[in-house]
This record gives sequence, structure tokens and C-alpha cells, in this order.
Amino acid sequence: MGEQKHIVLTSHPPKGDLRPPEVVWGAPDAKTRGPVIGSNNTPQQRNVIGVHSGAYGLYRALAIAAGTLDPVHKPDLTNTSPTDQIGPFPQWAQPEKIVSIDPYGHMVAQVFAEQIASGLDIRPTIAITKARIHLPELREAISAGRLTPDNAILSPSGEASVTKAAIEPVWYLPGIATRLGVDEGELRRTLFEYTGGMFPELVTRGDLKVFLPPIGNISIYILGDLEAFWDPDRPVACRVHDECNGSDVFGSDICTCRPYLIHGIEECVKSAQAGGAGLIVYNRKEGRALGEVTKFLVYNARKRNPLGDTAAAYFERTECVAGVQDMRFQDLMPDVFNWLGITRIDRFVSMSDMKHDALVAQGIEIGERVPIPDELIPPDARVEMDAKKAAGYFIDETVSKPTDLTEAQGRDLDDY
Amino acid sequence: MGEQKHIVLTSHPPKGDLRPPEVVWGAPDAKTRGPVIGSNNTPQQRNVIGVHSGAYGLYRALAIAAGTLDPVHKPDLTNTSPTDQIGPFPQWAQPEKIVSIDPYGHMVAQVFAEQIASGLDIRPTIAITKARIHLPELREAISAGRLTPDNAILSPSGEASVTKAAIEPVWYLPGIATRLGVDEGELRRTLFEYTGGMFPELVTRGDLKVFLPPIGNISIYILGDLEAFWDPDRPVACRVHDECNGSDVFGSDICTCRPYLIHGIEECVKSAQAGGAGLIVYNRKEGRALGEVTKFLVYNARKRNPLGDTAAAYFERTECVAGVQDMRFQDLMPDVFNWLGITRIDRFVSMSDMKHDALVAQGIEIGERVPIPDELIPPDARVEMDAKKAAGYFIDETVSKPTDLTEAQGRDLDDY
Repeated sequence: MGEQKHIVLTSHPPKGDLRPPEVVWGAPDAKTRGPVIGSNNTPQQRNVIGVHSGAYGLYRALAIAAGTLDPVHKPDLTNTSPTDQIGPFPQWAQPEKIVSIDPYGHMVAQVFAEQIASGLDIRPTIAITKARIHLPELREAISAGRLTPDNAILSPSGEASVTKAAIEPVWYLPGIATRLGVDEGELRRTLFEYTGGMFPELVTRGDLKVFLPPIGNISIYILGDLEAFWDPDRPVACRVHDECNGSDVFGSDICTCRPYLIHGIEECVKSAQAGGAGLIVYNRKEGRALGEVTKFLVYNARKRNPLGDTAAAYFERTECVAGVQDMRFQDLMPDVFNWLGITRIDRFVSMSDMKHDALVAQGIEIGERVPIPDELIPPDARVEMDAKKAAGYFIDETVSKPTDLTEAQGRDLDDY
Repeated sequence: MGEQKHIVLTSHPPKGDLRPPEVVWGAPDAKTRGPVIGSNNTPQQRNVIGVHSGAYGLYRALAIAAGTLDPVHKPDLTNTSPTDQIGPFPQWAQPEKIVSIDPYGHMVAQVFAEQIASGLDIRPTIAITKARIHLPELREAISAGRLTPDNAILSPSGEASVTKAAIEPVWYLPGIATRLGVDEGELRRTLFEYTGGMFPELVTRGDLKVFLPPIGNISIYILGDLEAFWDPDRPVACRVHDECNGSDVFGSDICTCRPYLIHGIEECVKSAQAGGAGLIVYNRKEGRALGEVTKFLVYNARKRNPLGDTAAAYFERTECVAGVQDMRFQDLMPDVFNWLGITRIDRFVSMSDMKHDALVAQGIEIGERVPIPDELIPPDARVEMDAKKAAGYFIDETVSKPTDLTEAQGRDLDDY
């Protein structure tokens, strides 16, 4: 396709009539805020840097190159609208409250119906649907008596109905800069330079304030009645979980990720059964956002440490390999809570002070903090737990700080 | 950091002494092939487009912007080397056999020791480690009598030891173009244009043949003895699995993804117990590489179809929303088999003709094809199964093609 046409450059703003609609971030309503347009079909309409679908934009481009996808395909959004109503909330009209999500991302077909009819290619950046989840651990929790089926929230066979949403990153660069406490120009320049020159528009197009970064999306799972999020008299339980494919999918026993996720889901079931709701936020931040290759390199360095794989060397080994102990930015994580209009979490299923402090900094009240029960910690994961506790991860009164950080020894590489 | 220094542009080749080492893809040995250098610490050394860690390169840039990561940090790779020896294999020296992986990615510290000592910042793009996986479904398979513990491959408590690897995408653009049957210039231009202008180097730097795309990595899990991969007399079972977060992690019952993955792992255990090996290849291609937002939009369109959620409309609904039924490129998938030196799969746990044909096209022999047992298919996933069977996904003789594609009806949105 397209052999004849010349390459469309985006490094300079279009002139005159071609000017796309302006995005007024944090405006009081959708109409004033304006649509985010990241489609390539009509380049002159684009008012962002990057494309939709995060990293999957690369696959879309590959499909076009291979000739299997019509480059000017426009999605038919019939019947795709959200299964549940979320927002608008006052937080949506406060520019500093949400900087990495388009709060109107799920309702574009509704709030921008006029513009879409007039030919603007506006696409949802959020999708909301329903699902029934079927987890073997919930069946085990029922047998173990930790959970009781009620045929509404939880079936005797361990099935639970949820509302779930997929949320693509939509970064408002001035807001991201403020949130991270850096200068916007410096942020743009660093994002450009340290991604190997990805998107020169980051430095040449100061007029484009919105960036669709090629990273993974957020997934959220809601158990119980959404309304409980907005009713101070009904309990809300929540687990903010950062992806760990090795544990979440394959059940690797070197960490507590899946056990803690499951514990979070159990707490959500209980909260829903108590007339409230439960929320799981799943962020694609594999290996503390260092990626899985770095994570596996660190595993080897830990296991081969002549002093043994102990909590004492846990973070130090990570920093040697990665240059930093943790590359996750919890600073942006609270945005999804502000999008959901949540101002209070009664039971927060996490030991992470980073997560807790980031939420509190955004004005989200946290009641109880719920650590993972000891019996759910796999033996080889003791090293991680001790390291985290010693590093000041939250511990409730019933758990004592480990005094000897060499006590828990991880499995040796020869023991697999 | 860096307020004073000017922005390093990469849109034109460096001059003279600054010229980085050349990459001779598919050369007979590592020394001749040369290292892939994607680090930003020493821009003049770079010989690729993009940076390491795929999409996580964005987080690295954010960490630098936030001042938490030293931009010139060099990883200390002490004790990070692979736990298992893989290669070199003849396939590594055939440019057309592997086009999306750096076959030397796990052994850079070894094969490029000289260059690293001389100051080149060469990083691993593959990491190999060991793990013990602990899946509740394996415990259930033991109780159900489908699996028998042997205290070696599988413990009575359902634990299995594995060798696993994380593999970052390293695209040799001329090879990718050949594999997809398109002109390299057209591929580069399309990748540039349809990602919203990501990496102008794709079009301005024809001299840079290697691209590190910001997409997810591949994970592989190996059960049993690696040596079996290279011994024609020992059985090899394999499941090539494309990510489905909703099912793989949360057990959503609308599809067969996790059940099929678990079935694949069970087959791998059996193959390992029979003196062979098993391989799970896990690709980050959420929602057929359409991304999770599109996937959820399609779920709603299917569930709200006035004719009901039936196999008849399954693919059609996807195409309306996404413009294509499937955006996965199985064409590149076989690279990991050529990297592993695998030429034969005795039991291929997949119904996908796309996957089968892609492997066979790369000269990988496939014995038996193993469909998912009917009892493992969740009720709401019948629609997907009928649609796939009708679309010509592999069916063994014992399974008949569905005659009535409206027979299986998915759960209505009101039934959640």
C-alpha cells in the first residue's frame, strides 16, 4: 500500500484549517475538555503524541505492513459501550487529580457523539465489561472455610461475577511532570533521549500536551456493588497488584505475588458479601517495572551470592544489576482511584508504603492495612518478605521485624 | 540532570571513529556477528533503533527524569549468567531462521567479554534461570488421577521444577520484511507512520538494521531435561500460548486460555516423566495482539448482539471493532524454537492452524496435535470453541465440526 504517497511528518504543527481540536485537560466537562485523537487514519486530526493500544500499536503497524489490516479501518463501536456507568466525578475536572488516564476514555461514543458524527476518528481508551471468574484458589478457600458461598457474590463452585475494565495510558505531560516534581521540558527531553529518540515530538511539539506511551494497560476487577465506592457507610477492600507473570500465571514460589493477589480477591469477596465492594487494580509493571529479563538476571545473582540468597542482599543485588531497587512509579497509580471516584479504602491489601503513601498523597483515605497471612507465604519467598519488612514495608503489630536478615535462606540453584 | 548538554539526535549516522560495531546478522559466530548495543550511556556506540527492556524502556526514562536512576548506570552482571547452556546451534548462523531474537542475547557476558572489557555497554536481551512452579490445577490433576507424582518432575504437592527464560524482542528488519513478504523500506515506513512517527530512524537510518521494539517479551518454561530437545529418541511436548490476562491470571470463563495453558503444562509434565521434555512458550499478545481495551469492547458487542452471542458472529464482531480478526503474527513465533535448536515437536498442544503452519514453514516437524479435552472447556467458552472449529482451527477426528453455529449461546450480560 501507499507506495506513491509521501511520508507524513508530525514533527511540526499543522497549519490553518487542519488544526485539530484542542485538549483542555481537567476542564469542567467533556465538551470543553475535548476529545483525545490518536488515530492515524486522519493525521491532521491528531492532537496527541503516539497511538492507541499502547505497545500493541506496533502490532497494528505490522498488520498494516503485512497487508492484513486496512490502514483506514474505522472501528464500528455498536454495542461496545460500558456495562456499568462510571462517572463523571468532581475529580475529573481537577487537572492535577488524573494525569495518566483519560477519564472520558470509556464514554467517547456518548460524550463526543457529535464530533464522531462529523468525521473525527475518536476511539475509546477504556473498555468496561462483565466477567465471571473461576479461580481454583477460591474453591480451596471454600473448602478451607476461609470463604462461604452465598450464591450471589460467590457460588459454591467458587465462581464470582465481576465488572472489569481495561484502561490505556493517556499521559498529560504537564501533569506527569508536576506529579513527579520535575520540569515539563526536562521530562519531555529525558523521555525522548532515554528511549533512544522515540517520538521527537516530545521535544519539537510543546503544543502537544498528551502522550499515548507504548506501555501496558491497567486492568481493574470489581466485586460486589459499584455503588459502595461512593457510599461512606459501605466497606471497600482493595488490592493494588503489580504484574508478576512468573507467579501470577505460573505459580513460581520465589515470591508472594499470586498468593497476595488471591488474598486480595478473597478480601474483595468478603467486602462484597458484607454489602460493600472489592477492587483489584492490576498494573503491567513486570519485575518492579524493570522487565522480566532484568528480573531473572537478579534471581541468578541472588541465588549465586556466595553469602547465600538472603534478605540482607536482596535489594542490593537488584540495584547492582538494574541501577535502582524499584522502577515502579506509584505516583501515577492513584489516578485510577480518582477516575473511579473512590476517596476511601477501608481494607487496603498491601504491605507497600510506596503504594499507601502515593494514595494518601492524592487524598485517598486508607483505613486498615492488610498484610498477607503467614500461611500463604511460599517457603522460598521468605527472603523477599524479610527484605521487604526490613526495608520498611508495612508490618502490622502482630508481625515483628526480622532481626536476622540472613536467617531466611532461599533455595540454591542446585536445589531445583 | 543534563540541563546544560544539548539533545543527542540519532537521525543521522555518526562519523569516523564514533562508528559503532557493525551487526552482521546470521554470521557463523558471535565474534563475526558482533554485539547489539542499545544502551543510552554511550550513544556513539549504539547500533540499533530503540532501547532495551521493550516497553519498560519508558519506565527507565521516567526513573531518570524523576532522578531516581543514574542515567549512566552500567549493570553489574556478576553471577547473572544462564543456569543452563543453550546453543550455539546451526540455526543461529542462518540469517532467515531467526529474525526477531538475538540468539546470543543470553551469553553476551561470555562471547563479548573482550568488547565489554574495552568499554562497550553490551546488555543481555535474554535471561535464563530456574524456578519451582506451584499450580493449584496440578494439585487437582493429581487428585483427579490425570497426573502421577514422581518426586522428581512432579512432587506429591503438585510442585514442578522448571528452567525458564525471558527473551526480549530484537528485530532484524530485513529478516522481518522477508518473513512477512514485504519490502524492507515499506515495512520501515509503515512501522514509522502507523505508530504515530515512533523512531524516525526507521526511515532515516537504513544503515541501522536492528530494531528493539517497545513491546512485551517472550517467556518460556521448560520441564524435564533440556537435552531431550536435541535427541530424536526422546519425546517433546509443547504449548505455544498467547497472553490472555483475564483468563491466565483471573480465570475468566469466557475463553479457554488458562485451561488450555494448564493442559499444556500437564502434557509437559507427562512428556518430562516419559524421559523427554516439555516447553511452554508464553507470548505477550493480549487479545490476539489487539490489546485488552479492544478485546473488552468486542466482548460487549458479542454479548449485546441481538442474535445472541454465538459462534456465527464471533469473528465478525471482532473484525467490525478491530478491523481484523486476529493481529497476532505467528510468522515470527517460530524464532524461539530455532533459538532453542528444536526441530521436532512430538505433541503440539494447540488447535491453531496459524501456529502449526508457521512452525512447519520454518522446518519444525510436528507429530501429534493435541486439542483441549472437552471437560476442560468452561460453559461460556463454548461459543469461542465452536467459532474456532468452524473457522478451521484444528480438530482431531474425535471432534466433529459444529453444524449449528448458533447452538452454543454465551452468557447474556444480564446473567453476570
